[in-house]
Amino acid sequence: MKINVPDYILKLKPYKPGKPIEELEREYGIKDSIKLASNENPQGPPESALEAMKNALKNAHRYPDGSGFYLTQKLATKNHVKPENIVLGNGSDDIIGLLTRAFLTPGDQALMPLPSFLMYEIMVNSAGAESVFVPLSGPEKSFSIDLDGIVRMINPKTRMIFLTNPNNPTGTVIRKDDFDSFCSKVPKDILLVIDEAYIEFARDENGLFGQDYIDQGRPVVVLRTFSKAYGLAGLRVGYGIMDRDIAQVLNRVRMPFNVNSIAQAGALAALDDEDYLEKSLAVIQRGLDYLYGELDGMGVTYFKTQSNFFLIDVKMSADEVFERLLREGVIVRSMTSYGFPEYIRVTVGLIEENKRFIMAFKKVVSL
Amino acid sequence: MKINVPDYILKLKPYKPGKPIEELEREYGIKDSIKLASNENPQGPPESALEAMKNALKNAHRYPDGSGFYLTQKLATKNHVKPENIVLGNGSDDIIGLLTRAFLTPGDQALMPLPSFLMYEIMVNSAGAESVFVPLSGPEKSFSIDLDGIVRMINPKTRMIFLTNPNNPTGTVIRKDDFDSFCSKVPKDILLVIDEAYIEFARDENGLFGQDYIDQGRPVVVLRTFSKAYGLAGLRVGYGIMDRDIAQVLNRVRMPFNVNSIAQAGALAALDDEDYLEKSLAVIQRGLDYLYGELDGMGVTYFKTQSNFFLIDVKMSADEVFERLLREGVIVRSMTSYGFPEYIRVTVGLIEENKRFIMAFKKVVSL
Repeated sequence: MKINVPDYILKLKPYKPGKPIEELEREYGIKDSIKLASNENPQGPPESALEAMKNALKNAHRYPDGSGFYLTQKLATKNHVKPENIVLGNGSDDIIGLLTRAFLTPGDQALMPLPSFLMYEIMVNSAGAESVFVPLSGPEKSFSIDLDGIVRMINPKTRMIFLTNPNNPTGTVIRKDDFDSFCSKVPKDILLVIDEAYIEFARDENGLFGQDYIDQGRPVVVLRTFSKAYGLAGLRVGYGIMDRDIAQVLNRVRMPFNVNSIAQAGALAALDDEDYLEKSLAVIQRGLDYLYGELDGMGVTYFKTQSNFFLIDVKMSADEVFERLLREGVIVRSMTSYGFPEYIRVTVGLIEENKRFIMAFKKVVSL
Repeated sequence: MKINVPDYILKLKPYKPGKPIEELEREYGIKDSIKLASNENPQGPPESALEAMKNALKNAHRYPDGSGFYLTQKLATKNHVKPENIVLGNGSDDIIGLLTRAFLTPGDQALMPLPSFLMYEIMVNSAGAESVFVPLSGPEKSFSIDLDGIVRMINPKTRMIFLTNPNNPTGTVIRKDDFDSFCSKVPKDILLVIDEAYIEFARDENGLFGQDYIDQGRPVVVLRTFSKAYGLAGLRVGYGIMDRDIAQVLNRVRMPFNVNSIAQAGALAALDDEDYLEKSLAVIQRGLDYLYGELDGMGVTYFKTQSNFFLIDVKMSADEVFERLLREGVIVRSMTSYGFPEYIRVTVGLIEENKRFIMAFKKVVSL
């Protein structure tokens, strides 16, 4: 079959369909596995959101509100901005796609940390632009984002810079003064995308808060999500906070029904559920205290996090540790594909899940 | 603020945020309005889907299955194709976006009927390509798609042709023999996108069924949706059926979590609910019989449909009729923005809704 496909599309990594956990469990002959792999909220979704979604289901035959009127209004109020500063997405992935489609063309470059969220690269390259990677700093700096390294890679083709704060997979935050110094070296027409998927978990008072920069005369887009602290990863609701001019451009390429109606209802309720958010943060903090303590006891090297996941240096094949843990019914993430072949990333779970992880981990590393 | 925006993005129509019906009702001081404007299924969502979605809610904190494993499997079985022939989308809009991003670059052209689904134009133009419009045939041919006119516009820049079958906003179908003749005149490297959003409602046995063409040596993509006959417009689930090679390309640009977990659960259940589908078709057929009869009695000009909506020639300002009907609590679609300033499009509703429409219509046209 003849069909013209642009080179930059053919160069994209082919998609490997994954299998649902149920299928994985069947394959490995395990049951009741615990999933500490995707930085999801171990509490389950907020009860308030469940109620709201149940109510919304009866109107599932109607199109969603294409402007996300109520959700946009509430997000604006909560974030002390105007509705015209908010753009809704089918997850923050969707906003990344809107940004790359609206602002990048073939020949352009986007800078991003390596490793970082895979969608940056996919979306930049889908737009025919080039992803330019800047390795994280080393373990001595807790693998923080190398802002100086990014500045060194800026050239006239650079149109966009992705920063993840707190960073994934390392959980480090960018300090506000480091960011200020960074900004002074970055040309003012380069779009800074600050991905704050995990910002609610950050406790460092000197950390960067992207929103402070949206009206500082340079294009800055802050990405947020309901997938982590708000416990609604399955619903795909993310949003961007940005200057109104940027929002207007993104809305031109946005599909009007990108956020489904059940998701809008759930997110709206979750936003008001301050108890849930508080509990989410407490669960993670308690979990981290426990996990750090146990790992210290074992003499294991790990990296303290400002998020709901952290890295462990397993000092052997991470893929092997992943496999062994899987057989114990504990699913974590091997960092091999992120370029850290001896690290695993563990999402903080509920107390009993954390205990089960520690038990399994002790067993598999002593094999 | 300085930021580089490609010309083709700036040329896109600016987005006008709509208001939810609740806000519209408040503004117009009406209550309990009926919505016959968006070709939604008047039955409400399938009970089976509601049950499945309620069950799925408790896992809303988990990411969706990125490959849509179970839904893809079932769609393949139902459509007698293989899973690798299916691509899932956040509504079929999303598949349109994948197609334009994967196959169009600046300088390319895509042909489409005028009027037709607005997303074709938005997505083609967002990719920097050019939308070339071919007017529908006139009222004497029930505004059917002008296939000969499309053939005449083909040139070396043409990469993609959109056909909607049944067509929106006219409800006409393309005859199979007309399509065969059309194909014989279309170069084999042009991608044919056959949008079958309303195919379940079509009753013409000589009508085109796009799937028959996916392995005929030319690139053909058939678009389907759960938004119409399956009553799940709020969930945003669509899919494409296509050659495996095309699917592999689309999956490279697809966001892995584009279909949310509740939506996957609802669609999976709806697919098995043959009673619901049968009832959907019966409700529309009964509704059309009633509406045609009443309009015949009034001597009104309308166009018979193979879908769940139809056009009425109101022989006055459609915007005015829209406004007047709105004040009666009946929401239809004025076709002014589609280039038919004296036509309205009415979605078939439940019996009582159809009666209410006829009563209101009688009142407003006799004003």
